[in-house]
Amino acid sequence: MSDAPAVTAPPTLGQKLTAEAIGTFVLVLFGVGTAVITQGEDYAAVGLAFGIAIIAMVYAFGRVSGGHFNPAVSIGAALGGRIAWREAGAYMGAQVGGALVGGLLLVLMFVLGDTGLEFGDDRFGANFFGDRGGFALGGALVIEIVMTFVFVLVILAVTDTRNEHPALAPLAIGLTLAAVHFASMGATGTSVNPARSLSTVFFSGGDAMVQIWLFILGPLVGAAIAGLSYPALFGHGAEPVVGSGMNFGGGRGGSPTAPGYGTPDAYQQQWNQQVPGYPQAQQAPVAQAPWGQQSAPAQQGGQQGWPDPNAGATQAVPAQQAAPAQPQKIVQDGWEWDPAAQQWIPEQKAPQQSWPDAGGERTQIRPPDGQ
Amino acid sequence: MSDAPAVTAPPTLGQKLTAEAIGTFVLVLFGVGTAVITQGEDYAAVGLAFGIAIIAMVYAFGRVSGGHFNPAVSIGAALGGRIAWREAGAYMGAQVGGALVGGLLLVLMFVLGDTGLEFGDDRFGANFFGDRGGFALGGALVIEIVMTFVFVLVILAVTDTRNEHPALAPLAIGLTLAAVHFASMGATGTSVNPARSLSTVFFSGGDAMVQIWLFILGPLVGAAIAGLSYPALFGHGAEPVVGSGMNFGGGRGGSPTAPGYGTPDAYQQQWNQQVPGYPQAQQAPVAQAPWGQQSAPAQQGGQQGWPDPNAGATQAVPAQQAAPAQPQKIVQDGWEWDPAAQQWIPEQKAPQQSWPDAGGERTQIRPPDGQ
Amino acid sequence: MSDAPAVTAPPTLGQKLTAEAIGTFVLVLFGVGTAVITQGEDYAAVGLAFGIAIIAMVYAFGRVSGGHFNPAVSIGAALGGRIAWREAGAYMGAQVGGALVGGLLLVLMFVLGDTGLEFGDDRFGANFFGDRGGFALGGALVIEIVMTFVFVLVILAVTDTRNEHPALAPLAIGLTLAAVHFASMGATGTSVNPARSLSTVFFSGGDAMVQIWLFILGPLVGAAIAGLSYPALFGHGAEPVVGSGMNFGGGRGGSPTAPGYGTPDAYQQQWNQQVPGYPQAQQAPVAQAPWGQQSAPAQQGGQQGWPDPNAGATQAVPAQQAAPAQPQKIVQDGWEWDPAAQQWIPEQKAPQQSWPDAGGERTQIRPPDGQ
Amino acid sequence: MSDAPAVTAPPTLGQKLTAEAIGTFVLVLFGVGTAVITQGEDYAAVGLAFGIAIIAMVYAFGRVSGGHFNPAVSIGAALGGRIAWREAGAYMGAQVGGALVGGLLLVLMFVLGDTGLEFGDDRFGANFFGDRGGFALGGALVIEIVMTFVFVLVILAVTDTRNEHPALAPLAIGLTLAAVHFASMGATGTSVNPARSLSTVFFSGGDAMVQIWLFILGPLVGAAIAGLSYPALFGHGAEPVVGSGMNFGGGRGGSPTAPGYGTPDAYQQQWNQQVPGYPQAQQAPVAQAPWGQQSAPAQQGGQQGWPDPNAGATQAVPAQQAAPAQPQKIVQDGWEWDPAAQQWIPEQKAPQQSWPDAGGERTQIRPPDGQ
Repeated sequence: MSDAPAVTAPPTLGQKLTAEAIGTFVLVLFGVGTAVITQGEDYAAVGLAFGIAIIAMVYAFGRVSGGHFNPAVSIGAALGGRIAWREAGAYMGAQVGGALVGGLLLVLMFVLGDTGLEFGDDRFGANFFGDRGGFALGGALVIEIVMTFVFVLVILAVTDTRNEHPALAPLAIGLTLAAVHFASMGATGTSVNPARSLSTVFFSGGDAMVQIWLFILGPLVGAAIAGLSYPALFGHGAEPVVGSGMNFGGGRGGSPTAPGYGTPDAYQQQWNQQVPGYPQAQQAPVAQAPWGQQSAPAQQGGQQGWPDPNAGATQAVPAQQAAPAQPQKIVQDGWEWDPAAQQWIPEQKAPQQSWPDAGGERTQIRPPDGQ
Repeated sequence: MSDAPAVTAPPTLGQKLTAEAIGTFVLVLFGVGTAVITQGEDYAAVGLAFGIAIIAMVYAFGRVSGGHFNPAVSIGAALGGRIAWREAGAYMGAQVGGALVGGLLLVLMFVLGDTGLEFGDDRFGANFFGDRGGFALGGALVIEIVMTFVFVLVILAVTDTRNEHPALAPLAIGLTLAAVHFASMGATGTSVNPARSLSTVFFSGGDAMVQIWLFILGPLVGAAIAGLSYPALFGHGAEPVVGSGMNFGGGRGGSPTAPGYGTPDAYQQQWNQQVPGYPQAQQAPVAQAPWGQQSAPAQQGGQQGWPDPNAGATQAVPAQQAAPAQPQKIVQDGWEWDPAAQQWIPEQKAPQQSWPDAGGERTQIRPPDGQ
Repeated sequence: MSDAPAVTAPPTLGQKLTAEAIGTFVLVLFGVGTAVITQGEDYAAVGLAFGIAIIAMVYAFGRVSGGHFNPAVSIGAALGGRIAWREAGAYMGAQVGGALVGGLLLVLMFVLGDTGLEFGDDRFGANFFGDRGGFALGGALVIEIVMTFVFVLVILAVTDTRNEHPALAPLAIGLTLAAVHFASMGATGTSVNPARSLSTVFFSGGDAMVQIWLFILGPLVGAAIAGLSYPALFGHGAEPVVGSGMNFGGGRGGSPTAPGYGTPDAYQQQWNQQVPGYPQAQQAPVAQAPWGQQSAPAQQGGQQGWPDPNAGATQAVPAQQAAPAQPQKIVQDGWEWDPAAQQWIPEQKAPQQSWPDAGGERTQIRPPDGQ
Repeated sequence: MSDAPAVTAPPTLGQKLTAEAIGTFVLVLFGVGTAVITQGEDYAAVGLAFGIAIIAMVYAFGRVSGGHFNPAVSIGAALGGRIAWREAGAYMGAQVGGALVGGLLLVLMFVLGDTGLEFGDDRFGANFFGDRGGFALGGALVIEIVMTFVFVLVILAVTDTRNEHPALAPLAIGLTLAAVHFASMGATGTSVNPARSLSTVFFSGGDAMVQIWLFILGPLVGAAIAGLSYPALFGHGAEPVVGSGMNFGGGRGGSPTAPGYGTPDAYQQQWNQQVPGYPQAQQAPVAQAPWGQQSAPAQQGGQQGWPDPNAGATQAVPAQQAAPAQPQKIVQDGWEWDPAAQQWIPEQKAPQQSWPDAGGERTQIRPPDGQ
């Protein structure tokens, strides 16, 4: 039962952005902090610090925001059909904000700590290439692209709703980031995350700032390749969410679950988000289609062949999978959402509309944000 | 089923304090022990030793006491509404006691081992700042505050009853402590735990003792910030327990579960403790409200907005959630608790009062301690 | 429910080979990459990089292909009755292909990175023995055989369907590979994987190429011993799959589950694969026997004694376990497979043939590849 | 369902001893092997190699034998009421046998590898104290006792049937062994396991052999303290098994499960073994009492106070918990065990005796060994 899906109020957008900001803050504090204090001498400690930051933050806040903590991951998630572009943009802002606060605090600690490092010192963990001690430009760019590609590919795979053990996904993601550092710290200091690269660059002097472009471009390119290729190679566990992938707006939301697999947990749900405010969300809080309502054959088309990444959003689907045209009744624990009054009222018994009361497998309710 | 909630006698307060003492003893033995024997040269080993001590002890005793092993964590748990102040105080005493025994034993090992270290040597892993080899006071204080804030924030998040994978929470907590050490060992030797700092300080000479205040103050301040900010930012998974948070006494206990989520496991239950001896516990062993009895709308208020940390304890709740005024019947496996005779008798069938017999999802029974 | 078995379209052979190629590519990128960039100085980082690559790739793609990423593992799996020889051969080709691409990319990165390493340099992580810096031939061969034996034995044991916690199996496998590196990196650079050894050998100069035979022979011998001895010592969790073990063709498929244990998850299913195109697959997509249909006594023969590794395929079994002689009806979510039209049609109600609709425990359907 | 308890033939004693021998062999191969090849310089790698060996072997063979791999653990398990003395003795023999084979193979590898180490060299990872480079005798003895105490205490706690997450127990155990090494490798090379200490001592010269007694005595004393104190402090999750603890024979077997907790998985069952051949096993294969049959009140006595370690075996229990006096019918998947013919026959329908057919929660059947 502890693995059962939940019926509860989902996190607000404010909470999601807070989670993204805190998580990226901690990534900088642990990862860049360890890199600075050891001056990159201890591969095991620095790599594990980055990895553990992700492990801890995803277990802590994965249920809230999905735990991206990295603009490249958000780009990959959007291209992979897991999050709407609109939300991905907000995530990226929160990530960069959290990273900058983390970078500033980190620099302050070393300055207050009387360690000999001052603002503008190039030993604050900024990424590097060429004459600053790393691989030449070409090698550095290839490394950042390839490593980010692998990192985002792992994330998309382990958060796929067809993955039956979401409990272990955060561990796999964080350990991957550790291994990425083991393999590339000596080459570039390892970015694979533009927010991490931005965190201390403004306090690290001009040489670092001149090179920052590579650590934004490389990760984003690698993440884009992963976001496009994963669904192309392995299909979708769930239908792409509205406003994601190559559909930058409009479209139609589907059942965020793979046919036959268990209901996604809160973490997987955050990796298959629906967007409030789209057409089908006008009359009522957007209710995701009941999990039990599956359409295996339609879905199988996407899994047996080598589907085009856009196919999921345009293929014909049986009628029962389409979003409900009429306002559905939202029932939760004996209470019902009154879309007119915009408040909860005791459940009005109407047997043909209420969902069965057994198990914890009912609809997750998503009220419009900000109310 | 192995993840199913349990109906069994809960651990006694004596067992909880024993668990807290043993756990803190092991934390000192492993963590400080590794720091002393390697003289802090091996970041990976020292950080992992601290982290693994927590992982092992929480898997071993988390079901007994929740596995704080750290006065700062107990402060954060109390402010975060997870444990009553009264019990937090007892925990802290047990933690310091266990740490002192661990510190003494550790020092004895090195003295008996003829290693050249004697009582009063400043190489017994005491924390440090300034002229003892670390960051200057300001930087050291900021580091201890920030690192403890992150550590306690992670703990409160992963033990939240809305977290669907409590099985992984101890791993996330312990790994976080390892990363905290990676990032701050070079600055202060890393405390984030007053009990750990006290463990060997009395055997480490006057210089160490003069600095001990920072490693009590810093962690407690950081933990307090985390304890107050986590529920403010992300709401409560369960209602604050009686006598916790800013309510230092009185108050009302609620259902220690989030609406719609699975029943908390024994570990999560220890992170949402009720206190025996409060008003509603006068007539019978305190029975936590049946898990199945949920009040989603009331709870949702706290999750959709940015609630005041005290809101959970003062907001109106539907009547069925309030603690039962009359003595409830405690039934377990066909036996019933007789509050008059203070003993178990065969169940007296009274269908309207007994809980349904299906699944392992009935009430955890908490008899008054010491009887 | 998130651990529940799934009814969904299984991965195609193309997806499996893609997964094997990507996984071996990442193993080379992370593992050999870390070995090259640290020049093998950092045992902890290099061992963990290899181990984490496996952990990440098995969590990501274990549900697709089982996650071998190693020709020795595929040999061991085939001899151990877990995969057909025909499929094992295809896997091995994909693994070597992925490894070569990874090796080439790795070398390119260092060349582009202007690191002083050029094509033909013997510092690209190729395995070694004797005068190239490792153990003498005899010791090197014994080490590769023994280490691969242990590695494959662990894999066969943790992917056994009698293992109740498949979610942790990838972690155990990857950590084992890390420990194998800790124990043998100093001796041979550690192969235990011919694909890893081949990855950079063609770019490492003649001395490395002359020694490559040992790192193909040793791992394959060790894996063969493990593949034969595990079922001989501990029996089969599931009946050997068609065309595996010492049966290089023909034969009969059985229920890929241990009597009384939970239905295998997708990962365990990939470790007990059936082969399309064998006799019983002529009339319809091969349907594995319903999980609920168990034959404990027959199976117990293999578990109580010390069975011959071939016994599983030749012993008498109750009739109800044999593969259905007549075309069974394949029903999934209200749709039915029409073997004549080779397409899905709405379910034709025939109560005595359809499976009960409760739970997620129905048959996994495996259509012939490529259609 | 993958976490559900299993109805299947349990492993034979031969398989258990094989598992114990292989596991201890691998512990020596990985742990001592890494210590020898790095000459103890790399704390992180050596400690993790020992820990990972245990993690891998317990995930692989924990379901078979419980995964002791250490005579001290078997002593602690016997004193803690988890395994009969008779079986513990057999385990210890297998462990020492496996360790000796591992030690011999390890030495052979280095000799064949032409590494300069020869038989009788004191660099084959034998434990040490005093003038061989470690702590003086007193400190060494205290360290081995205390470290083994903590290690066995963790094992007894995480394998307690009241622990709801047995899937994570092997990880916690193995990581604990790693931390034990971090904290004490510098002092004694870390034994906490007589089998590990014996593995290479006969090939390491006279100085090592003279000191071996401490690494047998210390671990056994520490384990005995843990075995006696854990149940005294925290009670029993399950009733002590027959012939364990201070009861070196006779006695009565009970339900190997804690009231209200989920059915133990195969791993926990191996940690609460019943012994065949005792009185109640005369008429039929010993059938453990049905899990569903619980006796909470009787059990609670042991959990609320500070019970005498022997209390569990002598306290009065309700009649329905006692072992069945008459031969019970053993039914499994439609087959029934015929105690007269000693074979399986089709189930003889006798509704009042057969167990309900739902779920996977029926009795584990334990036929007498060797038949």
